Amino acid sequence: KVKTVPIRAVVITDGFWSKRRTTNVESSIPSMHDELLAHGRMDNFLRLEDKSSKPQQGPVYSDSDIYKWTEAVGFVLQSSDQPALRETVAKMISEIVAAQEPSGYLNTYYVGDRAAERMLPLTQERGHELYNIGHLLQGSIAYYRATGDPTLLDAGIRFVDNFLLPNYGPGVNQKPIVAGHPEIEMSLIELYRTTGNRKYLDLAGYILQGDSRIPLKPSQIVYMFCGIPFTSRTKLEGHAVRAMYACCGATDYYLETGDPAYLHTLNTLWTDLITDQMYITGGVGARSEGESFGNPYELPNARAYGESCAAIGNMMWNWRMLAATGDARHTDVIERALYNGINSGMSLNGKLYCYRNPLAYDSSTGDKIRNPWYDTTCCPPNLERTLASLPGYMYGTSEEGVYVHLYDNSEMNWHLASGTPLRLTQKTEYPWDGEVAITVTPQASEIFTVFVRIPGWSKHSRVKVNGSSVEGVVAGHYLALRRRWKPNDMIQLIFDMEPQVIHANPAVADDTGRIALQRGPIVYCMEQMDQPAGHDPAQFPLYAARLSPATEMHYDAQLLDGVVVLSHPGVLMPAAQPDSLYQPELDRTTAGCAPTSLKMIPYYAWNNREPTSMQVWIPAAAAAEV
Amino acid sequence: KVKTVPIRAVVITDGFWSKRRTTNVESSIPSMHDELLAHGRMDNFLRLEDKSSKPQQGPVYSDSDIYKWTEAVGFVLQSSDQPALRETVAKMISEIVAAQEPSGYLNTYYVGDRAAERMLPLTQERGHELYNIGHLLQGSIAYYRATGDPTLLDAGIRFVDNFLLPNYGPGVNQKPIVAGHPEIEMSLIELYRTTGNRKYLDLAGYILQGDSRIPLKPSQIVYMFCGIPFTSRTKLEGHAVRAMYACCGATDYYLETGDPAYLHTLNTLWTDLITDQMYITGGVGARSEGESFGNPYELPNARAYGESCAAIGNMMWNWRMLAATGDARHTDVIERALYNGINSGMSLNGKLYCYRNPLAYDSSTGDKIRNPWYDTTCCPPNLERTLASLPGYMYGTSEEGVYVHLYDNSEMNWHLASGTPLRLTQKTEYPWDGEVAITVTPQASEIFTVFVRIPGWSKHSRVKVNGSSVEGVVAGHYLALRRRWKPNDMIQLIFDMEPQVIHANPAVADDTGRIALQRGPIVYCMEQMDQPAGHDPAQFPLYAARLSPATEMHYDAQLLDGVVVLSHPGVLMPAAQPDSLYQPELDRTTAGCAPTSLKMIPYYAWNNREPTSMQVWIPAAAAAEV
Repeated sequence: KVKTVPIRAVVITDGFWSKRRTTNVESSIPSMHDELLAHGRMDNFLRLEDKSSKPQQGPVYSDSDIYKWTEAVGFVLQSSDQPALRETVAKMISEIVAAQEPSGYLNTYYVGDRAAERMLPLTQERGHELYNIGHLLQGSIAYYRATGDPTLLDAGIRFVDNFLLPNYGPGVNQKPIVAGHPEIEMSLIELYRTTGNRKYLDLAGYILQGDSRIPLKPSQIVYMFCGIPFTSRTKLEGHAVRAMYACCGATDYYLETGDPAYLHTLNTLWTDLITDQMYITGGVGARSEGESFGNPYELPNARAYGESCAAIGNMMWNWRMLAATGDARHTDVIERALYNGINSGMSLNGKLYCYRNPLAYDSSTGDKIRNPWYDTTCCPPNLERTLASLPGYMYGTSEEGVYVHLYDNSEMNWHLASGTPLRLTQKTEYPWDGEVAITVTPQASEIFTVFVRIPGWSKHSRVKVNGSSVEGVVAGHYLALRRRWKPNDMIQLIFDMEPQVIHANPAVADDTGRIALQRGPIVYCMEQMDQPAGHDPAQFPLYAARLSPATEMHYDAQLLDGVVVLSHPGVLMPAAQPDSLYQPELDRTTAGCAPTSLKMIPYYAWNNREPTSMQVWIPAAAAAEV
Repeated sequence: KVKTVPIRAVVITDGFWSKRRTTNVESSIPSMHDELLAHGRMDNFLRLEDKSSKPQQGPVYSDSDIYKWTEAVGFVLQSSDQPALRETVAKMISEIVAAQEPSGYLNTYYVGDRAAERMLPLTQERGHELYNIGHLLQGSIAYYRATGDPTLLDAGIRFVDNFLLPNYGPGVNQKPIVAGHPEIEMSLIELYRTTGNRKYLDLAGYILQGDSRIPLKPSQIVYMFCGIPFTSRTKLEGHAVRAMYACCGATDYYLETGDPAYLHTLNTLWTDLITDQMYITGGVGARSEGESFGNPYELPNARAYGESCAAIGNMMWNWRMLAATGDARHTDVIERALYNGINSGMSLNGKLYCYRNPLAYDSSTGDKIRNPWYDTTCCPPNLERTLASLPGYMYGTSEEGVYVHLYDNSEMNWHLASGTPLRLTQKTEYPWDGEVAITVTPQASEIFTVFVRIPGWSKHSRVKVNGSSVEGVVAGHYLALRRRWKPNDMIQLIFDMEPQVIHANPAVADDTGRIALQRGPIVYCMEQMDQPAGHDPAQFPLYAARLSPATEMHYDAQLLDGVVVLSHPGVLMPAAQPDSLYQPELDRTTAGCAPTSLKMIPYYAWNNREPTSMQVWIPAAAAAEV
């Protein structure tokens, strides 16, 4: 329903995301390159070419770290040429490809003594061979689109054409296949889109159906989110990244086939997502055990898992659902995840990454949440490829016209379905300010629709076209502006940036008696170091927020690379008896408390200064009963 | 400081615990016998005697299931002879002992091919050999004290004297020793008390110091709660049952040696327990992962682990701390755990057991909390031995006189330090009623002290002796009634049974905005099936309790074997939008809610009818801000 606009057609200019994206290119991607090399991720390939004597390093999915980083570079190179970076990757690609076997097989873990385990059912379940190849395909396509260099893409095609397709599939002479960790599905479909070879789509469809010749335990079916017909799923469960990637693949399959059974299941799962499984930050996957979804409404804060990769998977899935439906509710989820639960995953200096993204933090635990390296380093390059791919998420097209999904300073140079070249220019200080000016410049005047997204959180929005107000503005929907557009027509959007006091559904036990603050798309948190009353971690739980909507705000250019700070009226409760966990008839009302003001910063920017306690959901000060 | 009174000196007569204890003897212990046999726990022994062809069954600690059950029977037989039960156990003991090797070694798992692994460092860390023997010793001592039959006790002594002491310990010709799962420490000290052989105490002390020849990873030192000097511990952490059993052994060691370093550490750990680690039910060990303590104040409700064994360990430890200090704060913990977090572990019919004891339950998850059997069946026989040993927890003596620790209809026939025979008789409807009448009958009149415990929860208590009020009554302390007591003197205690609204320390994030109800020692909960407004699990989170202390109560003899039911004023909040997890400016005040009354039952009795949602901590209805 909505088509993508390629990354190279969109330039993100100075604004909220440009700073993050510059850091990504100048700091994150180069430093992650060094980390990957330091941890032997390229030695794994070079060893097979007798160019390294190092032993195999890292877990079974280590190859994917290189491929995902390559994809990030591929997206960067679609936005601008970076000769040094391009040369580095070209050399790595030649080293990767040199490790490919004549059969097409390519994997640095299942070699030597372990070669006998290749693609055995147990290996498919746990060994991530197809997961690695999926990331190779995605990385190679991004790089190919940027540079036209098919070296890595051809290697991927060789794996699929020569090794995978002849030997694995439904045929009587073929062996069974299971994704193990979903990823191969969406990458095969992207390969289909790139090459037009329908066999790739068919294999993806077969994998999405599950292969009953590999019998799985019920716990594996839950955990792996694959191995049975995708269309038999009724809820999100198991490993969150696996589930999100499976949903991406299934949505891609629906987009290419139109199979209504898929859309039905996808809508069921999506309703589950937003009804009882998603954090206010757009993060998903509540439990550390099994990195998994919890029970409905099980959304712990300090113990939240909320893996960065899962939030990214959530954004990727909703991007595909948006393409399938054109429904702005999916864009709302994309924006929520992007600005909050994904954005939190990378430090402002671009060199530290979150694996977990908790919504509360007690500094006395000493837990380190932001780290430069994880031996399972899926999240860092995933964050890098997400920031690098951002221009591709901002706009879309359809038969009727053009969509504006996300707001930031940018210029799109693309064309309408009719072929007419179209330029869109955004000028805004979003997300700090709610005004967006869009200049619409078709090469020649033409009747088409500009779909502008009215965010779900914007209760009172105004839209003007060339200075005249437009009626029918509804939050959480695309507003269809259909008219004859001529060069330099102007759309003006004014969104509601009043800070909002958010309550969770009462079924979320972890948020009982607590509120969160959101302004525009930004979810806020309070860090103890910003509060006036002392830094003893034991004191942090004594802060409570009043419910009165009298939040003040100001932009602080010096703080955390520039953020709007909120000041919300609160109280500091008297300390409990230190040795008394449970006390009868304690006064918990505002009457017995000292008034204070709670200083709040955007959640994404937490933990970028000294270690200090943090919470998104703040206890609500109880008024005395009358 | 306070000595125990043997089980056989105390008879618990008709009242609160007698019903549970009768069920234990008539239903739990026999049905668990059948379960143990059905799951091959005796076949494991018979196989070694060529009397069974069944393979080894159950985990490495399966022998302990039999020993702990034997201990339960030993305690039962100390209260009353049960010829059939006694005969059953005598036969089992002869079968156990027949499996003992000439070396003294006795274990049904490390035999055959696995014999080579015996007592290797790795086996000591994980194999539970000494844990099994510890339970053998405890079981054999209970049985010996009841019957005078030393068959099993002698087998235990042979293991220790012939196998353990010569080969393991600090000597240069001895191999290193680590508890792995603490239990051997307290049982060796009980063996020392039974036999007078100081070598057992010394070995326990050596194990409590840790043996540096078995180097442990930091995570093992945390998880196993042994292997380093006990006196270097500063907080409760790791596997909760291991930690509690280690604390029991260390307190026993302090009781026998008076080593002040132990008391210092024990007090530090105990403060940690009651400051930030104990559930209101007396349960401990918040996390399922590793069955472990969480961070300070990490006390989730629905996800609580609160293993029955850990609550029992908590009671056992506080019993020893009470002996060491005479401090009624320990008795408060004993009572809290016994009436709530332990009592919940066994169903009213005595045939279903909890491993986990959560403080909230969502029936839509379908989780089964009460079950007749677990393959790790530590909890069921542990609950049985606890109920069977209860008479031993009620009274104590000291040089100054006699202690009344717990309240229930009972008769103690024991003696003072002077040797004067003393009878104490309690008449009460505790815990449903707060009046306790104690008749004090020394054989001849004598000056001594009766220490009556004033529970910490009883804000306004009255005490009379022969009708005259006594001054100086302080909650949470023993009241020392020193006078010349003569036969048939009467003490009258009147405790404060007003239901109390309990708040948790604000640092307990899971209890923010929630209250619990407690009356006397009983912690209450609400089950959805008792509430007037429908049984849809989605509706359960909409109940909220008003803070106004207007709780009504009545005794219902028909309900759950007879309980006092509380009715607390509450509201039913309007349902949230079903598809909206997060909503701005929702009215959460009582103004928009329908008034209702919340019916509450004792927590220990939850989940004894149909599956229904439950919570101990109830959302507090917020009053509107003025």
